[in-house]
Amino acid sequence: MISMRSARTLQQLGVTVCKRSLHHHHHHHHHDRRSVGIIGAPFSRGQSKAGVDQGPNVIRAAGLLHRLEQQGCAVKDYGNLTFEELDHDEPVGRVKRVRAVGSANQRLSKAVQDVKKDGHTAVVLGGDHSLGIGSIHGHAMAVGDLSVVWVDAHADINTPLTTPTGNIHGQSMSYVLRELQSKIPVLPNFSWLKPCVSAKDLVYIGLRDLDPAEHYILKLLGVKAFSMSEVDHLGVTRVMEETCDYLSAKVKKPIHLSYDIDVIDPSVTPATGTPVVGGLTYREGVYITEHLCQTGLLSVVDMVEVNPLRGQTEKDVESTVSTAVDVLLGCFGRRREGNHESDYSLPEP
Amino acid sequence: MISMRSARTLQQLGVTVCKRSLHHHHHHHHHDRRSVGIIGAPFSRGQSKAGVDQGPNVIRAAGLLHRLEQQGCAVKDYGNLTFEELDHDEPVGRVKRVRAVGSANQRLSKAVQDVKKDGHTAVVLGGDHSLGIGSIHGHAMAVGDLSVVWVDAHADINTPLTTPTGNIHGQSMSYVLRELQSKIPVLPNFSWLKPCVSAKDLVYIGLRDLDPAEHYILKLLGVKAFSMSEVDHLGVTRVMEETCDYLSAKVKKPIHLSYDIDVIDPSVTPATGTPVVGGLTYREGVYITEHLCQTGLLSVVDMVEVNPLRGQTEKDVESTVSTAVDVLLGCFGRRREGNHESDYSLPEP
Amino acid sequence: MISMRSARTLQQLGVTVCKRSLHHHHHHHHHDRRSVGIIGAPFSRGQSKAGVDQGPNVIRAAGLLHRLEQQGCAVKDYGNLTFEELDHDEPVGRVKRVRAVGSANQRLSKAVQDVKKDGHTAVVLGGDHSLGIGSIHGHAMAVGDLSVVWVDAHADINTPLTTPTGNIHGQSMSYVLRELQSKIPVLPNFSWLKPCVSAKDLVYIGLRDLDPAEHYILKLLGVKAFSMSEVDHLGVTRVMEETCDYLSAKVKKPIHLSYDIDVIDPSVTPATGTPVVGGLTYREGVYITEHLCQTGLLSVVDMVEVNPLRGQTEKDVESTVSTAVDVLLGCFGRRREGNHESDYSLPEP
Repeated sequence: MISMRSARTLQQLGVTVCKRSLHHHHHHHHHDRRSVGIIGAPFSRGQSKAGVDQGPNVIRAAGLLHRLEQQGCAVKDYGNLTFEELDHDEPVGRVKRVRAVGSANQRLSKAVQDVKKDGHTAVVLGGDHSLGIGSIHGHAMAVGDLSVVWVDAHADINTPLTTPTGNIHGQSMSYVLRELQSKIPVLPNFSWLKPCVSAKDLVYIGLRDLDPAEHYILKLLGVKAFSMSEVDHLGVTRVMEETCDYLSAKVKKPIHLSYDIDVIDPSVTPATGTPVVGGLTYREGVYITEHLCQTGLLSVVDMVEVNPLRGQTEKDVESTVSTAVDVLLGCFGRRREGNHESDYSLPEP
Repeated sequence: MISMRSARTLQQLGVTVCKRSLHHHHHHHHHDRRSVGIIGAPFSRGQSKAGVDQGPNVIRAAGLLHRLEQQGCAVKDYGNLTFEELDHDEPVGRVKRVRAVGSANQRLSKAVQDVKKDGHTAVVLGGDHSLGIGSIHGHAMAVGDLSVVWVDAHADINTPLTTPTGNIHGQSMSYVLRELQSKIPVLPNFSWLKPCVSAKDLVYIGLRDLDPAEHYILKLLGVKAFSMSEVDHLGVTRVMEETCDYLSAKVKKPIHLSYDIDVIDPSVTPATGTPVVGGLTYREGVYITEHLCQTGLLSVVDMVEVNPLRGQTEKDVESTVSTAVDVLLGCFGRRREGNHESDYSLPEP
Repeated sequence: MISMRSARTLQQLGVTVCKRSLHHHHHHHHHDRRSVGIIGAPFSRGQSKAGVDQGPNVIRAAGLLHRLEQQGCAVKDYGNLTFEELDHDEPVGRVKRVRAVGSANQRLSKAVQDVKKDGHTAVVLGGDHSLGIGSIHGHAMAVGDLSVVWVDAHADINTPLTTPTGNIHGQSMSYVLRELQSKIPVLPNFSWLKPCVSAKDLVYIGLRDLDPAEHYILKLLGVKAFSMSEVDHLGVTRVMEETCDYLSAKVKKPIHLSYDIDVIDPSVTPATGTPVVGGLTYREGVYITEHLCQTGLLSVVDMVEVNPLRGQTEKDVESTVSTAVDVLLGCFGRRREGNHESDYSLPEP
């Protein structure tokens, strides 16, 4: 694999780098990183609001696949997963719909493993953020150690014992972190799950609404977190530089980007279940993926919590969905300065 | 009093610092800085638009007191001041409603002195910005020399002789600045007022709509002012660093923060009497108080010019009021990265 | 001519610099730089949407002339140009309405030359951005070599052979760049036009929607371009510093500022023909002209693509037009910290 520095330099030349040519010594994958495998995960049981299961379809309808192809990606759509309805799914302690969430994430983990085995960068279209559990697990099963960049207004790291709401979409990270294993009780339909991420391999960006237990956990484990205070203090440029320096200080692991659309300000992306004021601008939201793309390490990307039923107007929904699409395009080489094919030549009169 | 550096370091550790324990050697106050005394000042005669006298009640109704308590503050509500209606209050020169403004500010000055004597950090909920006169005066009477951070789209420093509108909410600073005393005529109901702030102890943040006389005065007196040009040029982080460096270069005086909600952009806080385009973002507005809080020097905070009748929609009002609340919460320890009590422990299964 | 440094220092003192006194050794002009000549160019044939020809009148109606005078400018309004309707204007290749665009720009070029001969800084109120052709040409005819700062979401540098739409407002720069001359076919009503700008004298700011051919051309010619990625990465302050350093590295040429209102975010300036998400903030948009003004080199300013029929509400139009006015005021000395006349004195009681 080429160094980050080389990939960036080539792209600074403005050439649309064909990652296939750069990665021809890399034998694990049948395809290069710009081959994208899309998994729809229309799942909503990690929270209580209707509509987030429509995320995969509205994002596809906004032209994601076509636009990825237009910018030179090979795209394979694996379709939508189907999740079984469970008749009996009583709360376990405070935790709601445990069995549905466990079962759905087991299915998603398997799907992500399949896409990774096929050699693609996987894109998981949620659905709610409880899907982070299965997506990260499947990713780790396929590639081993990985880095997680969790871009979100919320830390989603309550344990089943600290959750104030019982919704698992606010607990996902606690299920997969090795260091929290002793704090997680046995839960039905979760026996397949093994913790697979170390706290030192996790970076948060965009936090601004944490429960006290979540704040405690981040400090206890020394998790690298750029809350909106840090984004304001450092600027998004330094946040991304520090994120990549931190994650690649020793070994360059594949990056799992878990992007909750609610990280962006509700004035831009209102159609989501738990909006919080004071979020990222559209430009910051897109800059993050432009920057991560240039590492050449993006391996799985989740785009979650787009909920078309939470917009008050059509414009609300359109803005939310098109922002989600632009964030994803940024993961796969789109640059605002433009792109052109390396063999382009200018017509003469 | 502990140094700013120590306070900041502790808070960087993420511990919700109990200021009481830090200040146990500080005998002037019965309570610590996180005990908050709230004064409602439903006063509108410093300008001409109806509704700004509803500010205290709408800010309380948005949950200010409860949320301050939730983040560990001891809160005492001193209720709303009552201001007498005056039958004869003819303009004096250009200046409108002088007697009402003089009388109201005398009352407010007394109320602020009482809250400071009780050992609280005072919060004055306006009402219009003419209240800055009495609030600063009362503060100075109680603690002596102080620094003023005036966060506002306007400088509010016209003299009674330069005011284009006659409204005293655009003149407040000229009444309390020592250096301008010779420029201020004798005004009815203002005999109680002694100038109490030196120009070198004043910092403006967010200016973008100044009359020529105001600009002249700022240059004449060498007042430190960060207009929106400077905020754009330096960024809010450096503006706050330079503000605190400037104010604490010699002696660390108690800080009087006078926060006019119109400093924030009208797209966020439209429900105010004199909105001006090109204002602070919500994030910058909150960052300012997060930063000032960490100095440990905030002693009185004014929140003025929230006018629910100036919003065109319910959403306009809600956004304005909730932003005002968030700004105030930032003054008293709220941090976007989250908080937890120092004795928190994580439950185990 | 005084150095940029001196001009800036004087202005930092907050004095409204009378450019006439600074420029009294400068014999080319009858007037100083703060004498403004305004040309209305109600032309819309460079694109296909109705309404952009109303730009000059709505910008005037928002008070541009009066406000320029208020801030100390001598303003002369040259009125609106009239453009002939052409009966036969069939596409030439892909290019639409060539003859109308050629003829209108010839007329505009002449008008700009006249205003420059009269010694004014010219302001061209569009109309669509195809007007850049005649405005730059006339400017170059009058003053010789010049720098072009093209502030726009789009590069407008397709050639007649690469244009995907056929609209000339997306091709303007290709017509005037010396380096592209061999790529431009002979077009009817354009025989008057001589390429007059070198690629090294061109800087783009705000790009975010480029066709592949445009991106290719920028790279081929090594054009200095600050796309929104660079604005995010560097911040607008450094973008403007680098722009001015780049343009004045050797000789300080007169600056042609061609400002397309669509560079600003559609949430602020929606009333324009080809809005693109992720634009400049109002503050960044104004900062650019504040900074360029301080060079003392602004010689012609285009303000184009304000289209009142593209706003969905009255507020949309009002916000777009007032932003255009504020951008223009920034070109002529308006500063957000305020201004005062150098002979101002404070009244005493």
